[in-house]
Amino acid sequence: MAKVAICGYGNLGRGVEKALSNPANRDMELVAIFTRRNPEDIHPASGVGVIHIDEIYNYVGEIDVVILCGGSAKDLPEQGPKIAEYFNTVDSFDTHAKIPGYYAAMNAASIKDGNVSIISVGWDPGMFSLARLYGGAILSDGKDYTFWGKGVSQGHSDAIRRIDGVLDAKQYTVPIEEAMDRVRSGENPTLSTREKHKRVCYVVAEEGADLERIEREIKEMPNYFADYDTTVHFVSEETLEKEHSAMPHGGFVIRSGNTGENKQVIEYSLKLESNPEFTGSILVAYARAALRLKEYGMSGAKTVFDVPPAMLTPKSKYDIMKELL
Amino acid sequence: MAKVAICGYGNLGRGVEKALSNPANRDMELVAIFTRRNPEDIHPASGVGVIHIDEIYNYVGEIDVVILCGGSAKDLPEQGPKIAEYFNTVDSFDTHAKIPGYYAAMNAASIKDGNVSIISVGWDPGMFSLARLYGGAILSDGKDYTFWGKGVSQGHSDAIRRIDGVLDAKQYTVPIEEAMDRVRSGENPTLSTREKHKRVCYVVAEEGADLERIEREIKEMPNYFADYDTTVHFVSEETLEKEHSAMPHGGFVIRSGNTGENKQVIEYSLKLESNPEFTGSILVAYARAALRLKEYGMSGAKTVFDVPPAMLTPKSKYDIMKELL
Repeated sequence: MAKVAICGYGNLGRGVEKALSNPANRDMELVAIFTRRNPEDIHPASGVGVIHIDEIYNYVGEIDVVILCGGSAKDLPEQGPKIAEYFNTVDSFDTHAKIPGYYAAMNAASIKDGNVSIISVGWDPGMFSLARLYGGAILSDGKDYTFWGKGVSQGHSDAIRRIDGVLDAKQYTVPIEEAMDRVRSGENPTLSTREKHKRVCYVVAEEGADLERIEREIKEMPNYFADYDTTVHFVSEETLEKEHSAMPHGGFVIRSGNTGENKQVIEYSLKLESNPEFTGSILVAYARAALRLKEYGMSGAKTVFDVPPAMLTPKSKYDIMKELL
Repeated sequence: MAKVAICGYGNLGRGVEKALSNPANRDMELVAIFTRRNPEDIHPASGVGVIHIDEIYNYVGEIDVVILCGGSAKDLPEQGPKIAEYFNTVDSFDTHAKIPGYYAAMNAASIKDGNVSIISVGWDPGMFSLARLYGGAILSDGKDYTFWGKGVSQGHSDAIRRIDGVLDAKQYTVPIEEAMDRVRSGENPTLSTREKHKRVCYVVAEEGADLERIEREIKEMPNYFADYDTTVHFVSEETLEKEHSAMPHGGFVIRSGNTGENKQVIEYSLKLESNPEFTGSILVAYARAALRLKEYGMSGAKTVFDVPPAMLTPKSKYDIMKELL
């Protein structure tokens, strides 16, 4: 049984913990949770031991793979290479523009002692990247379109919360059905940012705040909202808590292309009630793959593109051939 | 540039030929078409040389990979293992129940001289198998559903043609939208054969034939039609030729599962105007992968489950990380 540790115990860490408790993953055992916080303040659902991250190096040889559940902005760039030097790792680094740099750092660290680190695992980057790769390799004369949502964007919600007079907010990214239908028809349209997604915001304002100003500041915010059609709803704290505390997400990758005269369309989509639990389940499958890559003598940083799909499942080669092929 | 040969020049062979003429596949060059027929009767669109299949063994060392485009019923079980002993191969063997036996024969043959043979490549088996594998590895507490169509089924069309008084026929397999919607809702229903697909037949009858009897014989045919709601339309030869000679197909793999309390749905779908051209494009991508697996020192029979996705594309590891991850 493979010994697995979680590093970072937020929403994603809890999602990984839940995935590891699934009977289908009984080839893996959660043995520790590492945290930057005071371990005594954390009471994991699984009852597993919580240890301060500074002590992780005392566990070399006792953990087969560490699933890194920190954030991409600060945690992973700092923790990732340090931990990858001593352990096999899997992470969900998702700042697309910075992936090549992160890859280089993780590769240099993990290769030193022959470890495997699979980076940028999740659904985007991750499963959506695979859909783009498979789609492009097959329909090379074509174009791919990625739509996100309907789902909560943490970054956009945070941006609204920084506005003066805002107590709390949730922002939904919503794909525009009409644009998706044009893509599905094989028309290969050129779509502006505004044509692909709209943004819907639920905002709790301070009592007496200037709602018109808040709405204007949201709608005019560059990068985040200015290029989109944005709707702002002011709601009470209770409504926000009651109706908008779930973490749904999803999206669509559509590859539309031609083979000679014929149109061909491939579509991959996700409809998720819990974004972190879904991402956690993916991380666990790739943790299994990291150990198998290592068994095969591989080392260094890898992405989902490098992993033979068979390595994700605990089922045997014969069983998947018989049941799934 | 890799030297590629096609073995078998029917609809699929022509689809492969077209894919190889795509500029994105310029790392591969079609060098020969092998056929069981009289080579002089074949005039390929690409103008490449046509050679009788008995002479294929004279080309050992001159061809890097042979794409086997014969049928699964008779051609591949006979030709596959013979050719895999001397060449790297890719094929679309699609008799699901016989895959383990075919795998064993291809593995024994290809391993002798260190060749790689990737079997059962296409969209089902193939891309749909991958959707089932990825879906099951992630959402292990769940169920997958495969729907086919709307598309022409060759086997069912042939079965109708064997009925007395029938001159020609085309049969469409049509997925039932209501069943798909139930699956997409995360309900995890148990669906009967009749609830998943219906069958629509276009039949050209001999003049004066007993249409009622033909319709009854179709609808009562065991395995093929008896378990389905089947509609029969009698049409003229001209109508069949004009309205039903295209080869569209497609389908859906939906994985619906739970992570704890939360429902999660993954859907992969294809909408194809030309089934053989799409399958041909997949075969070409996996021909590239076969050569790369061999470069990495692998040999023996493989399936889509064994192939790292990165090996399908001519793009570099760095480019796919930057552009697609």
